[in-house]
Amino acid sequence: MNKITATYTDQYQLTMAEVYFLNNRHCEPAVFDYFYRKNPFKGGYSIFTGLENLLTILEDFKFSSQDIDFLNKIGLNSDFLEYLKTFKFTGTIKSVKEGEVIFPTEPVLSVSGTILEVQLIETVLLNILNFQSLIACKASRIRHAAGKRTLIDFGLRRAQATGAYFASRAAYIGGFNATSNVVAGKDFDIPVSGTMAHAFVQSYGNEIEAFRAFAEKRPTDCVLLVDTYDTLKSGVPNAIIIAKEMETKGYKLKGIRLDSGDLAYLSRKARKMLDNEGLEYVKISASNQLDENLIMSLNRQGAKIDVFGIGTSFITGQPDAALDGVFKLAHYKGEDRIKLSDSSAKITIPGKKELIRLTNEANLFAGDVICVENETNPDLMFHPFEPLKKMSIKNFKKEKLTYTCMSNGNRTLPPRTIKEIAEYNRERIEKLPEEHKRFEFPHIYKVGLSNTLNTKRNNLISQHSF
Amino acid sequence: MNKITATYTDQYQLTMAEVYFLNNRHCEPAVFDYFYRKNPFKGGYSIFTGLENLLTILEDFKFSSQDIDFLNKIGLNSDFLEYLKTFKFTGTIKSVKEGEVIFPTEPVLSVSGTILEVQLIETVLLNILNFQSLIACKASRIRHAAGKRTLIDFGLRRAQATGAYFASRAAYIGGFNATSNVVAGKDFDIPVSGTMAHAFVQSYGNEIEAFRAFAEKRPTDCVLLVDTYDTLKSGVPNAIIIAKEMETKGYKLKGIRLDSGDLAYLSRKARKMLDNEGLEYVKISASNQLDENLIMSLNRQGAKIDVFGIGTSFITGQPDAALDGVFKLAHYKGEDRIKLSDSSAKITIPGKKELIRLTNEANLFAGDVICVENETNPDLMFHPFEPLKKMSIKNFKKEKLTYTCMSNGNRTLPPRTIKEIAEYNRERIEKLPEEHKRFEFPHIYKVGLSNTLNTKRNNLISQHSF
Repeated sequence: MNKITATYTDQYQLTMAEVYFLNNRHCEPAVFDYFYRKNPFKGGYSIFTGLENLLTILEDFKFSSQDIDFLNKIGLNSDFLEYLKTFKFTGTIKSVKEGEVIFPTEPVLSVSGTILEVQLIETVLLNILNFQSLIACKASRIRHAAGKRTLIDFGLRRAQATGAYFASRAAYIGGFNATSNVVAGKDFDIPVSGTMAHAFVQSYGNEIEAFRAFAEKRPTDCVLLVDTYDTLKSGVPNAIIIAKEMETKGYKLKGIRLDSGDLAYLSRKARKMLDNEGLEYVKISASNQLDENLIMSLNRQGAKIDVFGIGTSFITGQPDAALDGVFKLAHYKGEDRIKLSDSSAKITIPGKKELIRLTNEANLFAGDVICVENETNPDLMFHPFEPLKKMSIKNFKKEKLTYTCMSNGNRTLPPRTIKEIAEYNRERIEKLPEEHKRFEFPHIYKVGLSNTLNTKRNNLISQHSF
Repeated sequence: MNKITATYTDQYQLTMAEVYFLNNRHCEPAVFDYFYRKNPFKGGYSIFTGLENLLTILEDFKFSSQDIDFLNKIGLNSDFLEYLKTFKFTGTIKSVKEGEVIFPTEPVLSVSGTILEVQLIETVLLNILNFQSLIACKASRIRHAAGKRTLIDFGLRRAQATGAYFASRAAYIGGFNATSNVVAGKDFDIPVSGTMAHAFVQSYGNEIEAFRAFAEKRPTDCVLLVDTYDTLKSGVPNAIIIAKEMETKGYKLKGIRLDSGDLAYLSRKARKMLDNEGLEYVKISASNQLDENLIMSLNRQGAKIDVFGIGTSFITGQPDAALDGVFKLAHYKGEDRIKLSDSSAKITIPGKKELIRLTNEANLFAGDVICVENETNPDLMFHPFEPLKKMSIKNFKKEKLTYTCMSNGNRTLPPRTIKEIAEYNRERIEKLPEEHKRFEFPHIYKVGLSNTLNTKRNNLISQHSF
């Protein structure tokens, strides 16, 4: 749906690039890291999402002739514009796999290339990865609350315009089963789902007539919306009549949907009414301002809901609405770079790095180690901001998390399907201990620097005066 | 940037449409109203935004052959798909002007057409209008806090993916001056703005060298970022040196930018340092997690900031992140329709309607009257949900707010430029009394039903039993 060209950027990337170019510094090599600082939703993790889209965008990240005309109009230098006419992203990207469970501070993705190209892609990289990682994390939390029940994305109408397109994709990766968003279903190969709205029932004037019309024309995929007039007095009894009529024709009513009122109470009552008529197979769907906390509350109340339709709060990532991911210089012209700050937590981690994950004897994730490039077997890890905290990591199984997925602007790994990514996420989430997944005060997952990286960083810090 | 086709919809619009089609009801005439229920940000108003985009989308709202193939794959009826191949939106839209100040409950836009086409456009209509109206409202609040100072949209990197594109447009309509988002600037004719990031300063290793390089190459548009090392000890003194060097060459340093630390304190100190050197003309910009409340706080602290760069909280419409706009059936097959509810505030307002605005003797907005179609001079208005509240409106000046902007699928009014819309919004906001614009417990703006409409609605309610 979205054709993103190289003007999908902040203007300052272009003014800086112009100065680099005019000073003949634009081809200097640089490495930038992508990481985030704070888990969204006061949770214990996030999910790295959006990589496939980013790579697709970068393979064709060019300025159209229309773009160049615009840049000329706003006064960029004409020699620089000549250069931009043939600009192409030729950098190298090392990243964790899309769908990976990730944690604050760790460099989950690094880009090496010329300073000009790496800065020019910063904005689109942050825009795509921050949002999808936020939404996949939200979806993962909702999945955690919903257990094995079905989750459907109903968010398009309340989404932040076309952001919905990427949110629907991220939702599927984070654990949703389907989306109402037809174009996202089409482009990203996500199952689509949807049956009827109140206006359909209203337009027939008479509820049972509307139900019957739908059941006759779509007998294999019939979910009846039962709250237009009165859920328990009209909607559910009418749905039962229709279900029986369908049985005589060899069909089964798939479900009913509740969209207002007390979902816990109504679902229990409706379940009983259906079961009393031998309609145990009819599923109950519910929608209306749901999120992970409301689903938890419905669980506690013994609600009988099989399918959740989730809208606004998920598709906009409420209450956070944004992930704070950043992209910081780590290496420039052959030298490691560090950014100091009055706040220890904002001092960056310099140099080219790898990420290694520790697994314990129960085959669960036990910590992540940020290492220097090509380090494979660190035995000690230090807290990134609290120098007194360290731990031995000799006895853990170690797994390298970062792979080169793009080299000199070309993909080096085959594209992964959304189903592969979602499946990978499911496997990884299973290996994350429960205490990091709970919603209230989750246990903080350990992320540290290897002994070698820690020493290197301390040396760099002591070379700079505060 | 975004090519939106008719699959930009919820799947249930298509399944309902299929049943209408197979029952030969798809050409029945219907009227739906767009309205919202709750002002965003606990404020006193919203701003109707997105209409021009919506009309552009609807003029070309068709299914591509790729779309049809997908709909076939997911099992829609083949006769229905034949019909969709030549589907085109041919409805009529009556709306308030884009940029209008709007209030809860009032039908700001109505669509008449066949039930099939009106439902098929529901999702895109809500998606486009809800989000842009939310963001224009947020921008308007920030403008209210910032007075006449310059406001720049810095949000792209933290936006909800491509939603940023429409947010940048809405920001300009709501009162911003410029955007960092190059593609939005290009496509929507918004001034673009941007100079340098920390990485630029870091890459030179030496702050003053970085500043000098930038000033030499971009002397007419030079804003120096002064907080990479130490704002008051390094950044501002270096900027002063550069400003003096620029003066000897006949140029003027445009500004400095603060991006961290205590903006109130630093801006006052920096202003004094610049002024002491005769650099009163150098503007101070500030960015870093700003919103309308922080700007109010900076005002109270006597901050000396001329330009605000606003990012995350504005571009995602925090803390709300969504406007609750809905699209409800008001008239079907020649009959007025009403949706009843246990909650009075959810009972809809039936029939074809007009919207009239009241202006008082001070030429300020005093209330809006929802009228029956073609009613021009109502003399009494009733609260929509509290039947005991009514007021005489004889002595107010009355202005019709709703215009037909699309007839049978064709625009009937020329497209308006973004500058016209922003200017219109500015004029209208000026006429809204201060008590509706304040942030804390704003006074509720009066919206009511004309006597005629109220009687009609009461009759319809009494025809239905609760």
